[in-house]
Amino acid sequence: MSDFDLIGHDDVADLARGAAVLGTGGGGDPYIGRVMAEQAIRRHGPVRVVQLADVPDDALVVPVGMMGAPAVMVEKLPAGHEPARAVAALAEVLGRTPTHVACVEAGGVNSMIPITAAAELGLPLIDGDGMGRAFPELQMMLPTLEGVAATPMALTDEKGNSLVLRTVDNRWGERLARPATVEMGASAATAIYPMDGAQAKRGLVPGTLGVARDLGARLARARREHADPVAEAVAALGGFELLRGKVVDVSRRTTGGFVRGRAGLEGTGEWAGHTLALGFQNEHLVAERDGAVVASTPDLICVLDAETGEPVTTEAMRYGFRVAVLGIPCHPRWRTDEGLDLVGPRYFGYDHDFVPVERLV
Amino acid sequence: MSDFDLIGHDDVADLARGAAVLGTGGGGDPYIGRVMAEQAIRRHGPVRVVQLADVPDDALVVPVGMMGAPAVMVEKLPAGHEPARAVAALAEVLGRTPTHVACVEAGGVNSMIPITAAAELGLPLIDGDGMGRAFPELQMMLPTLEGVAATPMALTDEKGNSLVLRTVDNRWGERLARPATVEMGASAATAIYPMDGAQAKRGLVPGTLGVARDLGARLARARREHADPVAEAVAALGGFELLRGKVVDVSRRTTGGFVRGRAGLEGTGEWAGHTLALGFQNEHLVAERDGAVVASTPDLICVLDAETGEPVTTEAMRYGFRVAVLGIPCHPRWRTDEGLDLVGPRYFGYDHDFVPVERLV
Repeated sequence: MSDFDLIGHDDVADLARGAAVLGTGGGGDPYIGRVMAEQAIRRHGPVRVVQLADVPDDALVVPVGMMGAPAVMVEKLPAGHEPARAVAALAEVLGRTPTHVACVEAGGVNSMIPITAAAELGLPLIDGDGMGRAFPELQMMLPTLEGVAATPMALTDEKGNSLVLRTVDNRWGERLARPATVEMGASAATAIYPMDGAQAKRGLVPGTLGVARDLGARLARARREHADPVAEAVAALGGFELLRGKVVDVSRRTTGGFVRGRAGLEGTGEWAGHTLALGFQNEHLVAERDGAVVASTPDLICVLDAETGEPVTTEAMRYGFRVAVLGIPCHPRWRTDEGLDLVGPRYFGYDHDFVPVERLV
Repeated sequence: MSDFDLIGHDDVADLARGAAVLGTGGGGDPYIGRVMAEQAIRRHGPVRVVQLADVPDDALVVPVGMMGAPAVMVEKLPAGHEPARAVAALAEVLGRTPTHVACVEAGGVNSMIPITAAAELGLPLIDGDGMGRAFPELQMMLPTLEGVAATPMALTDEKGNSLVLRTVDNRWGERLARPATVEMGASAATAIYPMDGAQAKRGLVPGTLGVARDLGARLARARREHADPVAEAVAALGGFELLRGKVVDVSRRTTGGFVRGRAGLEGTGEWAGHTLALGFQNEHLVAERDGAVVASTPDLICVLDAETGEPVTTEAMRYGFRVAVLGIPCHPRWRTDEGLDLVGPRYFGYDHDFVPVERLV
């Protein structure tokens, strides 16, 4: 991605679409994310992008994102300044000004929030993120596996409230930040996992923004050219088509600051006669085809509109939608024992061990 | 209280007992508070007491206490260092070292916690508190009526987690601190309402510690001399006996970080044939005798063991206890329109206006 050194207004739509695919159903709605980032770039100018390998070891890198149930962000739009205020609140307790902003995760909103913060603060944005996908809880970042502390972290809301946390470990960060997020209206901006450049290079996944922008552009082109966008996504991400079909059942509730639920699909076309069940908590976590697990966290389970290739978030999914479900290998560090302790199926209460998607399909 | 310039080991028992009476059923168990304060004084020496009038206008005063359901503190003892750590966390964001510690409220634990913090930090303790009694929510301090902000405030737990809040108003402080307190195990130490000496002189109630110590000593003496401790308390506090009798019914649950419930009493002796119902949320809020309100928040409703004069907290009250219930006029600032907006009966969901206890009985 050597040509990717600036995010301008016209890059945002592709980037938001591609990032929402990587968001595996969570990470926020691409339309809202797009509007916010475009507005920030119009106001403050394009955002400079720095490749992870070029970040100095003594940099102060601050990942930024929104915490909370993505469904809520549709109704309660962030005011726009709270991500930058979260960075400022964290900078105050660190006693140092951050040199780089990064993405906590990939997602339609959470790849955009760091753009708005970087634009407003005049800081460069790192091409990378903390997960290579999206996950629902804050300790679920690859830097946790490198021993990087999530705290001090800051949370801010659109009303002007802020909170700085210091916790004994990253799971305690999740435990204390989540109820505050709920009180703040089920979504809040966070600046978290402050780290130096050396830690960022070990901890973050490189190139996510470039991958997202290219994927978003390929999906848009396929749509324009009446090609198959699903096949484009499979080719771009090196994944597997798990099913195409119709959504016949969705149960979903927003509880404890998360959206949780299940969706049932019936295959159509060459998948006729097959069914697929999806389990999610903000993000898709398990896909069972005809009763057998065919993909499971931490591998990516992505749902696309079968016609347009637009990513479908867990809160947007509705009865009757025609979708394709993809399974995509996750970052290899998630597949270690330590990674699976954090984000494997058993952590989320599923009664099976992780098996790589490429062995299941 | 010109003679009250030092709290030594032998002052603590009386102080804890008297403060628990003023705690109106909340503010924590006097036995636990006593043990903690005695331990701190044994370790660090006596605590210097400063009268409110003698605090310099440019002092930095930090009220300290425990937030949470007092019932929990009986099972989950504070480790001892978290109040001092809360002050330190607050000092860090203030960029200044506090000059004085104060009590957020009167109570068996919450008049003791500031002693432990003052002892550990080597700071003087102000003879006074923020309520002249105890109340369940953090915005319910008289300094709120003087426009003093509750935040920045710090919360710490015994595990080593800490949280600093900045909120747009004091009720938002309560909304964001309460769920964190619940996650911290339903009790946490707080350093809150940082203020200068001039604000403290306007905002705090002077002399509470002296009143509590003298009351505690009178109750102990009455017990030794087989006199009537209840009559002593009534005389000391200028209050009214509302009923003596037996607890015949208690319903209580710990929910949302509070202990809430009702207790029913049947009169004995000269009160035979009368009943009294108490409603509480951490503290006693309303007393109805024979179906009519005879005392209500913000006036103090205090329950004493009829034999020993020991204060009975809302979580210690049990079927069969022989108790006396007192009604005592609150600090006059609570009786203003602004005070009643914060802590009047309607705020707590009762369908009656406040009438002073001296007019009701």
